Amino acid sequence: MRERERLARAALARLMEPQDSVGLALVQAVGPLDALGIATGELSAGPAVEREVTALLSQDGSLASWPGLVASQRRWAPRVRDLAPERDVETMRRFGGRLIVPGDDLWPEQLADLGLKEPLCLWWRGQEQAIPPARETIALVGSRDSTGYGSAVTGDLAYGLSQRGYTIVSGGAYGIDAHAHRGALNGAAASMPTIAVMAGGVDRFYPAGNEDLLRSVATQGAVIAEVPPGSAPTRYRFLQRNRLIAALASVTVVVEARWRSGALNTAHHAESLGRVVAAVPGSVHSANSAGCHRLLRDGGAVCVTDVGEIAELSGRSGEALPQDKEVHDGPHDGLSLEDLILLDALPIRSGSSVEKLAVVAGLSPDAVRAGLGRLGLLGLAASEGGSWKRKKNG
Amino acid sequence: MRERERLARAALARLMEPQDSVGLALVQAVGPLDALGIATGELSAGPAVEREVTALLSQDGSLASWPGLVASQRRWAPRVRDLAPERDVETMRRFGGRLIVPGDDLWPEQLADLGLKEPLCLWWRGQEQAIPPARETIALVGSRDSTGYGSAVTGDLAYGLSQRGYTIVSGGAYGIDAHAHRGALNGAAASMPTIAVMAGGVDRFYPAGNEDLLRSVATQGAVIAEVPPGSAPTRYRFLQRNRLIAALASVTVVVEARWRSGALNTAHHAESLGRVVAAVPGSVHSANSAGCHRLLRDGGAVCVTDVGEIAELSGRSGEALPQDKEVHDGPHDGLSLEDLILLDALPIRSGSSVEKLAVVAGLSPDAVRAGLGRLGLLGLAASEGGSWKRKKNG
Repeated sequence: MRERERLARAALARLMEPQDSVGLALVQAVGPLDALGIATGELSAGPAVEREVTALLSQDGSLASWPGLVASQRRWAPRVRDLAPERDVETMRRFGGRLIVPGDDLWPEQLADLGLKEPLCLWWRGQEQAIPPARETIALVGSRDSTGYGSAVTGDLAYGLSQRGYTIVSGGAYGIDAHAHRGALNGAAASMPTIAVMAGGVDRFYPAGNEDLLRSVATQGAVIAEVPPGSAPTRYRFLQRNRLIAALASVTVVVEARWRSGALNTAHHAESLGRVVAAVPGSVHSANSAGCHRLLRDGGAVCVTDVGEIAELSGRSGEALPQDKEVHDGPHDGLSLEDLILLDALPIRSGSSVEKLAVVAGLSPDAVRAGLGRLGLLGLAASEGGSWKRKKNG
Repeated sequence: MRERERLARAALARLMEPQDSVGLALVQAVGPLDALGIATGELSAGPAVEREVTALLSQDGSLASWPGLVASQRRWAPRVRDLAPERDVETMRRFGGRLIVPGDDLWPEQLADLGLKEPLCLWWRGQEQAIPPARETIALVGSRDSTGYGSAVTGDLAYGLSQRGYTIVSGGAYGIDAHAHRGALNGAAASMPTIAVMAGGVDRFYPAGNEDLLRSVATQGAVIAEVPPGSAPTRYRFLQRNRLIAALASVTVVVEARWRSGALNTAHHAESLGRVVAAVPGSVHSANSAGCHRLLRDGGAVCVTDVGEIAELSGRSGEALPQDKEVHDGPHDGLSLEDLILLDALPIRSGSSVEKLAVVAGLSPDAVRAGLGRLGLLGLAASEGGSWKRKKNG
């Protein structure tokens, strides 16, 4: 039964495009086996099922585009004759991969946050080890045509986060994605250093120029997709794939992105899931940072510049606040305004009397005497025979 | 009477350091003439005055440090014998300058937003022309040791804002301040292109390396200070001066600042006045942008990258939203998800049938036909004898 349900999900994932709300609502309403029967036209859906699907779509806010189950069946029909889920599972097995479905040990629990948009299944090529929870997973995303700056920053962040035990999720593309995976593989303190979420089938590594990199990701981490083997990475699937990247991680960091960029789509998915969106700033002269600055300006994204600031956003316990990075207070921090005025008035070379200091500082002689005492204790002022001057570190 | 009040304010400004809350409350309670009398000890303040000063300090939140009027008189006493306000006014006149006080035509009305912290008077060296209201005034501030990046961005912003008729306020220092004044002088479409607010007396132009620049600022705009001629620019006065820069402008833009920087102090003044704080992003590898990124991260500052984005924040009427900068929508923007899927499925070279497209796209044949019609109208798809393919701009 459990195996039949797994195969039914695999079949449904071939029948439907990712995030087919009607199909996903149908699965939720009647389970994958009956959903497959209804989707292929072998079973007829009674009015009770139609009502339940309607209710689920309404909850999800997808009702506007709901033309009834019959219309959806027409949509799914052309692909029915190509269904062969056993063959898809066998294909994956040949590549050392597997099919995973909700409830499996490997199923990332954080995908449940997608609600109705949780994928039917995942095709998984890589280590047989679970993706850590969202708070230990960071998404690093950005443009394919990264600059030297973006590449260096991405590599550093991925390496540093990986060293701290975070899993780095990205999309396996050229540019920022590739540098994110590579940096994570180099850092590799976590058991799953990096995950590539693909828009097409994981039977082949796409794009071709990243084949070696993705092979390494599959060896040390995992390469996953919700579309079955053989699926082309279409634009629509890229957009849907982005929701998986956003859902897997607690923080989505956009390192470099143009004013219009797929990475911004991932950021919007993250935002709508209540995940943290962060952006790395860059030169205002770089078109490749314009998308990051747009995210910062529109208020959705947090400005991050190093590993510590990102780690703090993850919500993982034990992460220090980034303010720690500057522990040395200046010698004048914490002085009262009066003492600061007095310090300013103190000469550096020849000393000055209390009375003269009172005039220069605009303080009463009593206040000057008290202040000189405090500054003396702090090592900022010194006296010689009633004549005061500033000490070197003041 | 009016002239005596002006001179009393000038005298009080020499007696007290900037933002001496007790002194300012005293002036508000009894007017400058009696305040000067009490401050110098010529008049005694009755309990009614003490009560009113207490109430004003309490409203201002400065009560914690209030040791009573007698203590303040002791503080002011050492400077009493040096008072010579007529001489100060005469000194300014020799430099072609003047004293202005609240109520004068030249008095910038936006300084009233400082409440009790409004300065007693301003020493003014420059054009006899009012500083525009806050919504037409932008503060550009930042580090003295600016980088090439910060200098170029500051110059561009100051020039562009000045060309649009904004007045640029800054602090007359080396680095970002100097580039702000210089850019504004070059742009100069406003009658007062730029204002330098000094921490020391305006009888001399400080720092010496900016003397020529500040002379130009005084010729085309104004160089102003709340401290009287001859006052040294102490650290305390720099911090107080920053509140004037923040209060004059609707937006304070920090272009480049280190993690600890006086520019951040100006930003905090702006924030506490309810003014807009903006920061220019830069490389995460530049220590000179760390303060800007800190402002962006802590949520107080808006990320700005060009003149248009700053102008929009000013609240001046007629400023376009910065979204205008990219008016060209991509050819696929606004397509429904179904049409996007269909577009993805359309081959570029050899055509495809409706039935085949239905399988590839996962749509019913009817939906494919309707979608092809829409894509055809948009010029994204074309058919030849029932065979459909994508058109070039798709």
